[in-house]
Amino acid sequence: MEHRTLGRELSNWGRWGEADQLGTLNLLTPERRVEAARSIHVGISMDLSLPLDEHGPQLTTGSRGNPVHVMTRLPSAPADVGGFHYFDDALFLHLQGATQLDALAHVAYDGLLYNGVDLGVVTTSGATRLGVENLVGRISGRGVLLDIPRSQGRDSLGPGEPVTAADLDRAEMHAGVAVGPGDLLLVRTGWLATFTERGDRERFFAAEPGLDLSTARWLHERDVAFVASDNWGVEVSPSASGDAMPLHCVLVRDMGMPLGEMFVLDDLARTAASLGASTFHLSCAGLRVTGGVGTPVSPVVTF
Amino acid sequence: MEHRTLGRELSNWGRWGEADQLGTLNLLTPERRVEAARSIHVGISMDLSLPLDEHGPQLTTGSRGNPVHVMTRLPSAPADVGGFHYFDDALFLHLQGATQLDALAHVAYDGLLYNGVDLGVVTTSGATRLGVENLVGRISGRGVLLDIPRSQGRDSLGPGEPVTAADLDRAEMHAGVAVGPGDLLLVRTGWLATFTERGDRERFFAAEPGLDLSTARWLHERDVAFVASDNWGVEVSPSASGDAMPLHCVLVRDMGMPLGEMFVLDDLARTAASLGASTFHLSCAGLRVTGGVGTPVSPVVTF
Amino acid sequence: MEHRTLGRELSNWGRWGEADQLGTLNLLTPERRVEAARSIHVGISMDLSLPLDEHGPQLTTGSRGNPVHVMTRLPSAPADVGGFHYFDDALFLHLQGATQLDALAHVAYDGLLYNGVDLGVVTTSGATRLGVENLVGRISGRGVLLDIPRSQGRDSLGPGEPVTAADLDRAEMHAGVAVGPGDLLLVRTGWLATFTERGDRERFFAAEPGLDLSTARWLHERDVAFVASDNWGVEVSPSASGDAMPLHCVLVRDMGMPLGEMFVLDDLARTAASLGASTFHLSCAGLRVTGGVGTPVSPVVTF
Amino acid sequence: MEHRTLGRELSNWGRWGEADQLGTLNLLTPERRVEAARSIHVGISMDLSLPLDEHGPQLTTGSRGNPVHVMTRLPSAPADVGGFHYFDDALFLHLQGATQLDALAHVAYDGLLYNGVDLGVVTTSGATRLGVENLVGRISGRGVLLDIPRSQGRDSLGPGEPVTAADLDRAEMHAGVAVGPGDLLLVRTGWLATFTERGDRERFFAAEPGLDLSTARWLHERDVAFVASDNWGVEVSPSASGDAMPLHCVLVRDMGMPLGEMFVLDDLARTAASLGASTFHLSCAGLRVTGGVGTPVSPVVTF
Repeated sequence: MEHRTLGRELSNWGRWGEADQLGTLNLLTPERRVEAARSIHVGISMDLSLPLDEHGPQLTTGSRGNPVHVMTRLPSAPADVGGFHYFDDALFLHLQGATQLDALAHVAYDGLLYNGVDLGVVTTSGATRLGVENLVGRISGRGVLLDIPRSQGRDSLGPGEPVTAADLDRAEMHAGVAVGPGDLLLVRTGWLATFTERGDRERFFAAEPGLDLSTARWLHERDVAFVASDNWGVEVSPSASGDAMPLHCVLVRDMGMPLGEMFVLDDLARTAASLGASTFHLSCAGLRVTGGVGTPVSPVVTF
Repeated sequence: MEHRTLGRELSNWGRWGEADQLGTLNLLTPERRVEAARSIHVGISMDLSLPLDEHGPQLTTGSRGNPVHVMTRLPSAPADVGGFHYFDDALFLHLQGATQLDALAHVAYDGLLYNGVDLGVVTTSGATRLGVENLVGRISGRGVLLDIPRSQGRDSLGPGEPVTAADLDRAEMHAGVAVGPGDLLLVRTGWLATFTERGDRERFFAAEPGLDLSTARWLHERDVAFVASDNWGVEVSPSASGDAMPLHCVLVRDMGMPLGEMFVLDDLARTAASLGASTFHLSCAGLRVTGGVGTPVSPVVTF
Repeated sequence: MEHRTLGRELSNWGRWGEADQLGTLNLLTPERRVEAARSIHVGISMDLSLPLDEHGPQLTTGSRGNPVHVMTRLPSAPADVGGFHYFDDALFLHLQGATQLDALAHVAYDGLLYNGVDLGVVTTSGATRLGVENLVGRISGRGVLLDIPRSQGRDSLGPGEPVTAADLDRAEMHAGVAVGPGDLLLVRTGWLATFTERGDRERFFAAEPGLDLSTARWLHERDVAFVASDNWGVEVSPSASGDAMPLHCVLVRDMGMPLGEMFVLDDLARTAASLGASTFHLSCAGLRVTGGVGTPVSPVVTF
Repeated sequence: MEHRTLGRELSNWGRWGEADQLGTLNLLTPERRVEAARSIHVGISMDLSLPLDEHGPQLTTGSRGNPVHVMTRLPSAPADVGGFHYFDDALFLHLQGATQLDALAHVAYDGLLYNGVDLGVVTTSGATRLGVENLVGRISGRGVLLDIPRSQGRDSLGPGEPVTAADLDRAEMHAGVAVGPGDLLLVRTGWLATFTERGDRERFFAAEPGLDLSTARWLHERDVAFVASDNWGVEVSPSASGDAMPLHCVLVRDMGMPLGEMFVLDDLARTAASLGASTFHLSCAGLRVTGGVGTPVSPVVTF
């Protein structure tokens, strides 16, 4: 099915009002947050972010690079010797360069963003609507891990391999969990190890396994609030239709769902398996950049 | 008392091993995290960070500045018209410029950092020990708000006004809470409104109300894991002794406690008062900058 | 006259070949460079650039900001004391933020750049054609100062005041010089003092005196290689037609002439007057940024 | 000879006054500039800088990196279609990362900079004395190329190979030129081809051929104003004594001579040989960064 047709069918435009800037995060209600707290049983905590440094996933040739960290205050010798010292630092970073969050202003087609907002709201000064500042502090609730390869008795998926709605069903059954309204869904493909374990940045970005277009309806029916994956773009690449990022179009622009990319899920999957738990508390805070279209994020899981 | 003497008395060096890089975050145990989940009752969520943009608190004349946000991908007309678009952005930021976290490598005196680590581990390449990457994802537990001015029937404290251990006791009693091991303590002074409401950056940085040296023993006795405030440096400035940042010296370097600065606490205080709740779940995730000595942070509270 | 009509008349497209990337800098021939050397008589040298620091001309609210300078290497105490030290630094800068050069890829209209190049050559990766790397090292020849207000017995022009072809004629006569092929023309309006002497950034950018559309033919007839001024955009603003930057359109896109902006000309004018010399050697080297559309520049004058 | 002893002998401290910030650039007098103009005979012009982009010489692992270029203004579709467009860009760069100039504040030993200035003048805010803003626009005069390998019938020197005073004499004789007061000296070793032609960054930085300590007296006796080379540090590395950068110590700190590094000299050498000319006009303008300790530079040669 063409993504425009599907997008019209699954559209959430107007569902939470004309002025809405939260999209599917509206589904993460206070009730859901209270329930999410009940997913904390043993108090084990983990961070799902890649390190931010010059050895990050980005190639030197793309339009996104790895961050540059500089120290801006070191002790001035010899005046400071023996006394109080403090150190400061600064960072230049592409907001989409590592573990990150796509804001609703990140994706448009046919001239429009989510909720029918004209893409002209995004200028060199940033996004005056649907910017990332609306999302920061909101993505905190029940996380659910669906480990696709593990549910199929494999370690990881291969490049270009689609994850279908049926695959999600199977992984859900394997996890013994029911994905429902307001959940923060983490879909593991195993693809990030291409970079984290094998250091092959070229291969990592050339293609990827990921969600195919059929999963949009699945996510919509369950009223999932947010989906993230351990690949660079959530969705399978290349797409079946050959379109550029058709699932981004439907999820972000039509349904109003922010996406999480390059989440580190391998350790999480091992811990989840050893604990026999597929749900947990998840908090995805990033930078409250005014008018930002994305942000690096350090997702914190607590079992 | 001189801060060196006090620092020796309250020192946590070696308490969690010679190689420890977590300091008082060791006190935030799995048990504490499980208990923290019980602080979530109504599911109301808030973010405690300042916006990251050119209108931030920094003066143009200091060594820290406000962030520079640039868009690095906007649609190229006319080729993209009608099709899929995405936007990217980048940020240059001083890591200590707004709502932020001091890593244990941020502060030294007499040539040493926490746990006796030589300050030479911090070079132009960053910190090879005690960097902020050790903390990210760890500061998630029970938050407690002590609202100093409110406990005294006032709106805010004045510049240079100390918050003493006795003031903490009084605010604790007023809040009807017992601050204990592993707690994440937020101390409200009301000072941030100097910038957020009155826009007076000069006055904001010239001095500040904050914790005085007597609070170090209080924090140590309670085994607090982390303390943050709504001022620029947690501690009162100028200090009583005239030393530069004596409480930083004791808390960060001797006790191994990370600090949170410029936390936005006014809305939190109003919500806490209206809910009659001084405890909540708090998650302070920042950027996992390898070797960073600090990070911007977006603290997420859930009542 | 409408700028499109004028642009077609004065077009240099194809004049130096289909693949040309130098535009009017082709007019700065070896012969002209040899002649330029004869403008050096007394060996007095001056730099025409604004300082690059946080006190630069840019407002904090625009899409261009002032540069951020950070020290990235300071001595690490106490290890380095007594021995060899070196210091390093880094800079984040908007390339159009202060004294600067517009590359031919900086300006387009009707979808095309100079020589009919599609504007799609400029992407998030920079300009694959007509970038600033083609110009660096080329703008070195005979400089000529036309001091418009001085030729009219005034100190400076006012906001929105046009400089016409007749004004250039009069200033040329006043200077006792004949502007000719390959010359590097500096047009003084006195406007920069709005910022440099009176610190009024708002007024400086709100409008400006500068060249009007009639000067395009004048510059074309003389075969001037390059024109710069002491305002922010060379041309008068607002324009007579109400169009955005019509002279940029004709000069840069139709004629292929790079432009220099925010050149510091007040000291130069005083020196020129005291020496009775309106010509000099001028070298405008900038940064050889691959694919850059502009560069900061430090123009060096030698009388 | 130990560099401290030599430094004392060749010291220029006080030679141009206690407050001097120009060092040997004082030797580049108006008379010299007038004479320099006589080196222009044929009007051929060249730029001696490396491109500034992500493919620069820096390794990803050092404290200096290659520049990051981002486009900050691209046309916003579809509003701009058909009309006027302009493009903007920004750059993050380490000032010492490619073809560059060391300011006098770049090097200290025994706690002092040139002219006895305390190294404490360089702080996180930059250098309040001896900064690069003093030099920009001053390095414009007669350039002389001494091609060391060519004078010895070779293509290039090898790593760690010293260039001695005797080698300079021999190259001078080969060039048929007398290096004298105020000259801007370019010493070719052929080493830069390790990076520019063979792309071997590791080898390029591991060691280098260059000037040894004996050349300091040679440069002092001739009253050379400035010396640059086609390696990363002007001087041979490792040094004979095993000291870190002993020639930097003598030239920059004791004699007050700015240095040029990573100058691209291979094309220049070929042109010079074909023209039979070893002298030319040279202008080395960089960025006027207030308090900078170095700057990228685009040296412009005119024969």
